[in-house]
Amino acid sequence: MEAMTTIAVASIIMSALATAIGTMVPAYAEGKAVVAALTSLAQQPDAAPTITRTLFVGLAMVESTAIYCFVVSMILIFANPFWNTALAQVAGQ
Amino acid sequence: MEAMTTIAVASIIMSALATAIGTMVPAYAEGKAVVAALTSLAQQPDAAPTITRTLFVGLAMVESTAIYCFVVSMILIFANPFWNTALAQVAGQ
Amino acid sequence: MEAMTTIAVASIIMSALATAIGTMVPAYAEGKAVVAALTSLAQQPDAAPTITRTLFVGLAMVESTAIYCFVVSMILIFANPFWNTALAQVAGQ
Amino acid sequence: MEAMTTIAVASIIMSALATAIGTMVPAYAEGKAVVAALTSLAQQPDAAPTITRTLFVGLAMVESTAIYCFVVSMILIFANPFWNTALAQVAGQ
Amino acid sequence: MEAMTTIAVASIIMSALATAIGTMVPAYAEGKAVVAALTSLAQQPDAAPTITRTLFVGLAMVESTAIYCFVVSMILIFANPFWNTALAQVAGQ
Amino acid sequence: MEAMTTIAVASIIMSALATAIGTMVPAYAEGKAVVAALTSLAQQPDAAPTITRTLFVGLAMVESTAIYCFVVSMILIFANPFWNTALAQVAGQ
Amino acid sequence: MEAMTTIAVASIIMSALATAIGTMVPAYAEGKAVVAALTSLAQQPDAAPTITRTLFVGLAMVESTAIYCFVVSMILIFANPFWNTALAQVAGQ
Amino acid sequence: MEAMTTIAVASIIMSALATAIGTMVPAYAEGKAVVAALTSLAQQPDAAPTITRTLFVGLAMVESTAIYCFVVSMILIFANPFWNTALAQVAGQ
Amino acid sequence: MEAMTTIAVASIIMSALATAIGTMVPAYAEGKAVVAALTSLAQQPDAAPTITRTLFVGLAMVESTAIYCFVVSMILIFANPFWNTALAQVAGQ
Amino acid sequence: MEAMTTIAVASIIMSALATAIGTMVPAYAEGKAVVAALTSLAQQPDAAPTITRTLFVGLAMVESTAIYCFVVSMILIFANPFWNTALAQVAGQ
Amino acid sequence: MEAMTTIAVASIIMSALATAIGTMVPAYAEGKAVVAALTSLAQQPDAAPTITRTLFVGLAMVESTAIYCFVVSMILIFANPFWNTALAQVAGQ
Amino acid sequence: MEAMTTIAVASIIMSALATAIGTMVPAYAEGKAVVAALTSLAQQPDAAPTITRTLFVGLAMVESTAIYCFVVSMILIFANPFWNTALAQVAGQ
Amino acid sequence: MEAMTTIAVASIIMSALATAIGTMVPAYAEGKAVVAALTSLAQQPDAAPTITRTLFVGLAMVESTAIYCFVVSMILIFANPFWNTALAQVAGQ
Amino acid sequence: MEAMTTIAVASIIMSALATAIGTMVPAYAEGKAVVAALTSLAQQPDAAPTITRTLFVGLAMVESTAIYCFVVSMILIFANPFWNTALAQVAGQ
Repeated sequence: MEAMTTIAVASIIMSALATAIGTMVPAYAEGKAVVAALTSLAQQPDAAPTITRTLFVGLAMVESTAIYCFVVSMILIFANPFWNTALAQVAGQ
Repeated sequence: MEAMTTIAVASIIMSALATAIGTMVPAYAEGKAVVAALTSLAQQPDAAPTITRTLFVGLAMVESTAIYCFVVSMILIFANPFWNTALAQVAGQ
Repeated sequence: MEAMTTIAVASIIMSALATAIGTMVPAYAEGKAVVAALTSLAQQPDAAPTITRTLFVGLAMVESTAIYCFVVSMILIFANPFWNTALAQVAGQ
Repeated sequence: MEAMTTIAVASIIMSALATAIGTMVPAYAEGKAVVAALTSLAQQPDAAPTITRTLFVGLAMVESTAIYCFVVSMILIFANPFWNTALAQVAGQ
Repeated sequence: MEAMTTIAVASIIMSALATAIGTMVPAYAEGKAVVAALTSLAQQPDAAPTITRTLFVGLAMVESTAIYCFVVSMILIFANPFWNTALAQVAGQ
Repeated sequence: MEAMTTIAVASIIMSALATAIGTMVPAYAEGKAVVAALTSLAQQPDAAPTITRTLFVGLAMVESTAIYCFVVSMILIFANPFWNTALAQVAGQ
Repeated sequence: MEAMTTIAVASIIMSALATAIGTMVPAYAEGKAVVAALTSLAQQPDAAPTITRTLFVGLAMVESTAIYCFVVSMILIFANPFWNTALAQVAGQ
Repeated sequence: MEAMTTIAVASIIMSALATAIGTMVPAYAEGKAVVAALTSLAQQPDAAPTITRTLFVGLAMVESTAIYCFVVSMILIFANPFWNTALAQVAGQ
Repeated sequence: MEAMTTIAVASIIMSALATAIGTMVPAYAEGKAVVAALTSLAQQPDAAPTITRTLFVGLAMVESTAIYCFVVSMILIFANPFWNTALAQVAGQ
Repeated sequence: MEAMTTIAVASIIMSALATAIGTMVPAYAEGKAVVAALTSLAQQPDAAPTITRTLFVGLAMVESTAIYCFVVSMILIFANPFWNTALAQVAGQ
Repeated sequence: MEAMTTIAVASIIMSALATAIGTMVPAYAEGKAVVAALTSLAQQPDAAPTITRTLFVGLAMVESTAIYCFVVSMILIFANPFWNTALAQVAGQ
Repeated sequence: MEAMTTIAVASIIMSALATAIGTMVPAYAEGKAVVAALTSLAQQPDAAPTITRTLFVGLAMVESTAIYCFVVSMILIFANPFWNTALAQVAGQ
Repeated sequence: MEAMTTIAVASIIMSALATAIGTMVPAYAEGKAVVAALTSLAQQPDAAPTITRTLFVGLAMVESTAIYCFVVSMILIFANPFWNTALAQVAGQ
Repeated sequence: MEAMTTIAVASIIMSALATAIGTMVPAYAEGKAVVAALTSLAQQPDAAPTITRTLFVGLAMVESTAIYCFVVSMILIFANPFWNTALAQVAGQ
C-alpha cells in the first residue's frame, strides 16, 4: 500500500500547487489590464466602449490560462489515471 | 496507519499553502486596481461612474482566481477523495 | 502517538505560516492604496468624498483575502478534521 | 512495482508543473499586450481596427507557447510511452 | 517525551517567525503611507486635515494585519491546544 | 530494471522542464514585441505595413528558439537513444 | 536532557532572528520616512511644523512593529513557558 | 551497468538544460532587439532599410549563441565520447 | 557535555548573525537619509538648520533599531540564561 | 571503474553548464548593443557608418567571452587531462 | 576534543561572516552618500562647506554600524567566553 | 585512488565555473560600455575619436578581469599543484 | 588529526569568502562614486578641485571597509588563534 | 591522506571562487565608470582631459579590490600554510 500513498500525496501536492501557482500570473495580468483600462478611461473618456470591449476580450484570454491549470488540478484529483490503475491493482490483488 | 498520517499532513500543508500563496497575487492586483482607480479619479473626476463600474468588474474577475484557490483548499480539507479512500480502507481492514 | 505529533506540528507550522504569509500582500496592497489616496487628495482636494469612498471599498475587498487566510489558520487550529480523526482513533484504541 | 510508482509520481509532478509554470509567462505576456492595446487605444482611438487586429494575432502566437506546455502535460498523463512500457512489462511478467 | 519537545520547538519557531515576518510588510506599508502623507503635505499644505485623517485611518487598517499575526503568535505561546492536549496526555499517563 | 526506471524518470522530468522553461522567455519576448508594435502603431499609424512585417519576422525568429526546446523535448520522449539502448539490453538479456 | 537542549537552542535562534529580521523593515521604513520629510522640507520650508509632527507620529507607529518583535524576543529568552515546563519536569524527575 | 545509467541520466539532464537555459537569453535579447527596431521604425520611418539590415545582422549574432548551446546539446545526445567509451567497455567485457 | 557545545555554537552563530544582519538595514537607511539631506541642502541651502536637525533626530531613531540587535547579541554572549543553566547543571553534576 | 564514471559525469555536467551559463550574458549584452545601435540609428541616421563599425567591434569583443566558455567546454569534452589520465590508468591496470 | 573543534569552527565562520556581511551595507551606504555629495556639489558649488560637513557626520554614523560588526568579530576571535570555558574545562580535565 | 578522483572532479567543476561565472560580468559590462559609446556617438558625432579611444581603453581594462578568471581556470586544468602532488604520490607509492 | 583538518578547511573557506564577498560592495560603491564624479565634472567643470578632493576622501573611507575584510582574512590565514592552539596541542600530545 | 585531499579540494574550490566572484563587481563597476566617462564626454567634450584622468584614477582604485581577491587566490594555490603544514606532517610521518 506504500505505492498508493505516494501517488495520493503527489496528487494532493501537485493539484494544490498547480492551482495556487497557476492562478498567480493570470491574477497579476488581469490586475494590470484593469489598471490600464482605468488609466485609459481617465485619459480618453470618449473611447469607453472600445476600451471596455477590448478589456473583456483580453481578460477572457488571460483567464483561459488560469482555467488550464484548474483543469489539470481537477484531473489530478478526480480523474487521475495513475491512481485508478493503482486502485485497480490493489482491488485485483 | 502511517499512510493516513502522511496524507493528512500533506493535505494540511497544501490547503494552507494554497490559500496563503493563492491569495497573494489577487490581493496585490486588487491593490493595484484600486490605486489606478484613485489616481484616475483624481485626474478625471467627471468619469467617476465609468471608473467605479470598471473597477468593480475587474475586482470581481481578479477575486475569482482567489476563490479557485480557496475552493481547492476547502476540497482538500473537507472533500478529499484520497483521505476518504484511506479512511474506507482502514475501516474495512 | 507518533502520528498525532506529526499532525500537530504540521498544523502549528501551517497555521502560523498561513497568517504570516497571507497577510503580507494585503498589507502591502492596502499601503499602496492609502498612498494613492493621499497623493490623489493632494492633487485633487475637491474629490475627497469620492476618493475616500473608493478607498474604503477597495480596502474592504483587499482585507477579504487576508481574512480567507486567517479563516484557514483558525480552522487548522480549532476545527481540524484530521486532528479530530486522530484524537478519536487514539481514544478508541 | 516500485518502478511504476516512481514513473507515475514523476509524471504527476511534471505534468502539473509543466502546465502551472508554462502558462505563467504567456499569461503575463498577454496581460502586457492587452495593456499596450488599451493605452494605444486611449492614445490613438482612430487606429482601433489595426490595433485590435495586431493584438489578436499577437495573442494567438503567445497562446501557442502555452499550448505547447499543455500538450506536453497531456502527453505525460494520457500518452506516456514510459508508463506504457512499464505497464506492458508488468502485464507480461 | 519526544512528542512534547517537538511541539514546543515548533511552537517557539513559528511564534517568532509569525511576528517577525508578519510585521515586515505592515511596517513597510506604514512607512510608504507616511512618505506619501509627507510629500502630499509639501505639495498641498492646505489639505493637511484631510490628509492626516486619511493617513490615520489607513495606518489603522494596515496595523490590523500586523495584529492578526501577533494574535496567532500569542495563541501559539499561551493558548496552544496541541500543547495542552500533550500536557494532559503526559499528566494522565 | 532499476536503470530503466531512472532513465525514464529523468526523461519525463527533463522533457517537461525543457518545454516549460524553454517557452517562458520566448512567450515573454513575443509579448514585448507585440507591445512595441502596438505602441508604435499608436504613435505612427502610417507605418503600419512596415511595422507589421518587422513584427512577424521577429516573432518567427523568437518562436524558433521555443521550437528548439520543443524538439529536444520530443527527442527525449520519442527518440531517446539512451532509452533505446536500455530497452535493447533488457530485451537481449 | 536532550529535550531541554533542543528547546534552548530553538529559543536562542528564534529570539535572535526575531529581533534581527523584525527590525529590518521598520528601520528601512523609518529611513524612507526621514527621507520624505527632508525632501518635503526642502520643497516647502514653511510647512516645517506640520511635516515634523506627522513624521514623529509616523515614526512612532512604525517603531511599534519593531517593538512587537523585541517583545516576542524577550518573552522567548526570559519568560518562555515551554522552557519553564521543561525545567519543572527536570526538577521533578 | 550502474555507470552507464549514471552517464545516460547526466547526459539527458544536461542536454535538456543546455537547450532550455541556453535559449532563454537569446530569445529575450532578440525580443529586445525587435522591440527597439519597432520603436525606431515608428520614430524614423525613413531609415527603415538601415534599421532592418542592422536588426537582421544583430539577430544573426545573437542567434549564434543559442546555436552553440544547441550544438553542445546535440553532441551530448548523439556524439558523447564518455557514453561511447562506456558502451565500448561494456561490449568488451 | 554535548548539550553545552550545542548551546555555545548556537549562541556564537546567532550573536554574530544578529549584529551582522541587524545593522544592515539601519546602515542602508542612514545612508538614504544622509543622501536626502545632502540633496535637500543643495536644493534649499537656506533651510540648513531645520534639515540638519531633522536628519539627526531621524538618524537617532534609525540607530535605535541597530542597537536593539546589538543588545540581543550582547545578551546572547554575556548574559545567556540557557548557557548559565547549563553551566550550573554541569557544575552540580 | 567508479572513478571514471564520476569524472565523466562531472565533465558532462560542467561542459553543458559552461556553455549554457557562459553564453547567457554575452547574448544579453549583444542584444543590448543591437538595441542601442537601432535607437542611435533612429536618432542620428547620418552617423550610420560610425555606429555600425563601433557596433561590430563591440559585438566581436563581447562574443570573445562567449568563445572562452565554448573553448573550456570543448576542452572538457575532447581534451580533458583528468579523463586521459584515468583512461591511461585503467588501460595500464 | 570534539566540542572545542566545533566551537572553533563556528567562531571562525561567524567572525569572517560578521565582518564580510556587516561591512557590505555600510560600504554601499557610504558610496551613496558620496555620490549624493558629489552631485550636490555640482548643483550648488557655493554650499560646499555645509555639504562636506554633513557628509562627514553622516559617514561617521554609518561607519559606526560597520564597527559594531568588526567589534563582534574581534570578540569572537580574541575574547570568546565559550572558547575560554572550553579551554578551562580541557585544562581541568 | 579515491583522493585523485576527488581532486580531479573539483578541478573540473571549478575551472568550468570560474570561466563561466567570471566572464558573465565582463561581458555585461562591455555590452554596457558599447551601448554608452553608441548613444554618445548618436548624441555627439564630432567626438567620435575621443569616444572610440576611451571605449577601447575601458574594454581592455574590463577584459583584464575576464582574463584573470581564464588564467585561474587554465592553472587549475594544466598546472594544478595539488593534482601534481597527488600524481607524484601515486607514482611513488 | 581530524580536528586540525576541519579548522584548516574552515579557515581556507572563510578567508577566501571574506575577501571575495567583502570587496564586492566597496568595489561597487567606488564605481558609483567615480560615476558621480564624472557626471558632476561634465555638469560643472569649474568645481573640479572640490569634486576631486571629495571623491578621494570618499574613496578612502569606502576602501577602509574593504580593508577590514582583508585584515580579517589575513588574520585567519596567518594569525589564527584556534589553529595555533590546535598546533600546540598536537605538538604537546 | 584523507586530510590532505580535503584541504586540497577546499583550496581549489575557494581559489577559483575567490577570483570568479571577486572580479565580478569590479568588472561591473569599471563598466559603469566607462559608461559614465563616455556619456560625460558626449555631454562636455571640452573637459576630456579631466574626465579621462579621473576615470583612470577611479579604474585603478576599483581594480585594486579585484587584485586583493587575485592575491588571496594565488596565496591559496601557491603559498597555503595549511597545505604546507599537512605536507610536512605527511613527510615527517
